[in-house]
Amino acid sequence: MSFKLTILGCSSAVPDLDKHPSSQLLNSNENLFLIDCGEGTQIRLRERNINFQRISHVLISHLHGDHFYGLIGLINSMHLLGRKKELHIFSHFELKNIINSQLQVASTILNYPLFFHEIPKDSEEVIFENDEIIIENILLDHRIHCSGFIFREKKYLRKIERENIIKHNIPDFYLNKIRSGDDYKSPTGEIIKNKQITKKARQANSYAYCSDTRFKKSISKKISGIDLLYHESTFNEKHKNLAKKTGHSTALQAANIANEAQVKCLLLGHFSKRYKDVNLLKIEAQKVFKNVILAENGMQLNFKEIIQNN
Amino acid sequence: MSFKLTILGCSSAVPDLDKHPSSQLLNSNENLFLIDCGEGTQIRLRERNINFQRISHVLISHLHGDHFYGLIGLINSMHLLGRKKELHIFSHFELKNIINSQLQVASTILNYPLFFHEIPKDSEEVIFENDEIIIENILLDHRIHCSGFIFREKKYLRKIERENIIKHNIPDFYLNKIRSGDDYKSPTGEIIKNKQITKKARQANSYAYCSDTRFKKSISKKISGIDLLYHESTFNEKHKNLAKKTGHSTALQAANIANEAQVKCLLLGHFSKRYKDVNLLKIEAQKVFKNVILAENGMQLNFKEIIQNN
Repeated sequence: MSFKLTILGCSSAVPDLDKHPSSQLLNSNENLFLIDCGEGTQIRLRERNINFQRISHVLISHLHGDHFYGLIGLINSMHLLGRKKELHIFSHFELKNIINSQLQVASTILNYPLFFHEIPKDSEEVIFENDEIIIENILLDHRIHCSGFIFREKKYLRKIERENIIKHNIPDFYLNKIRSGDDYKSPTGEIIKNKQITKKARQANSYAYCSDTRFKKSISKKISGIDLLYHESTFNEKHKNLAKKTGHSTALQAANIANEAQVKCLLLGHFSKRYKDVNLLKIEAQKVFKNVILAENGMQLNFKEIIQNN
Repeated sequence: MSFKLTILGCSSAVPDLDKHPSSQLLNSNENLFLIDCGEGTQIRLRERNINFQRISHVLISHLHGDHFYGLIGLINSMHLLGRKKELHIFSHFELKNIINSQLQVASTILNYPLFFHEIPKDSEEVIFENDEIIIENILLDHRIHCSGFIFREKKYLRKIERENIIKHNIPDFYLNKIRSGDDYKSPTGEIIKNKQITKKARQANSYAYCSDTRFKKSISKKISGIDLLYHESTFNEKHKNLAKKTGHSTALQAANIANEAQVKCLLLGHFSKRYKDVNLLKIEAQKVFKNVILAENGMQLNFKEIIQNN
């Protein structure tokens, strides 16, 4: 049982030798969600020995090149390497045509099912849900339609202590109720308290990905209490006007969102190449929010540790 | 004055850490022609410290991903880095829509002129010509429409020996005729032989790029006497049937074309990843054609040396 985030790229705009465009991989109990997919993402995955055939879902925040130019290559490589299992893409609707026209011109008929799911442009909804996780979109404020994502693990069930179940002679059909927190009432009327027969469940984790956006105060309400917030911080306060003009945020603005939302930890990224040392963005953010991490290529964040360190 | 080829990628199909998809850069007297543009090509250019803003023309052989998925990223980076001068793309016509739809969805209006030039699908023509070079397309035999390219430098003019021009009192308006090889007839009727007043011109070079194709005998006639022939050799003879099925050639087939065409040198590339040591492809080719080079990432070929070594 794990909830881990790997940073595959955290630079803005133009790729360079060691500046990779946006991409992250969220591993939720071995279900792999790829978040954004700049050019070269398939190489970043190989560098980290991540088998990209295991990715089941790809979420694209918006259709600026540094967030999706690597997707067609990844889709094509999955095909050429014999993928059979389905792949689900969540994006604004225009991406479907961009991908399909490139497959069509190459006469490529994928040997796996590819599903496109449209992210709404003017409402915030649950865009995906299974037994383990719920994903919602966040409306961001960029130059074109841009979506953030909130990933919330569902509440874990309490862990049954097998020996106490046997001891109290509790029938199997009752176990799901007990996992959900119910006490047990025996046929003789005896009450066995839930805590006597179960252990605490693992804490459900949550992650919010706020891709390219101007400072938008209302985000903080939406992501209140999240474990880890990724918020872009392309600029520092010195370039506040440029940030506003280009649809981006400063590190201080990102920290204000984190502080207001009382998240456990703030992850900064999407750095402008003008900053030789991005540590100045961390220092700026820490003026209003202490627990700040700077994204780095290849960084892996384990949510269990983030919460323990908080 | 130079004619040089740089290999940016020479692997087929799926990119890997050290296996880069097709891309080459032809430098003809500092005019840069990019030939094919697989994913990551802009990074390959940076690795070799080549300023990609200097590229004036891009030629895309066909619309399989390993030959063009890097183009949209390159076009976008040129824009973001402030390019003003025009860029010319030569490709089959469907590429224009693929590129434009990606620019449009990002609301990107390029700050430089981008021109698309359609490569014919059923005829062989001069597709580009300026004062220095002529480019023709070659109809190849692949799974989808695929074009090779022949680059021929125009014949260089003879070099005038200034001191002899003065000595014989030859007027300026006569010099272009002399550069073209004419003798000089003085007002008194004296004939000055061209060789007395000029030096030999640099030899004009030629390059043929035969991208993905089945063995096609007629190519050899088209490229007869070319200095350097790049011919794909995805497979060896053991996989001859697979080559035919997938629209590719073996190294031996490439060598047969080189031999028939009496080119000076054969460059092999587009290697299948199944061969751990591609030297076996060279050995196979050398059974019928001696002067074989295996393409390698970053390799630079100077045509002057190729011809001298022949």
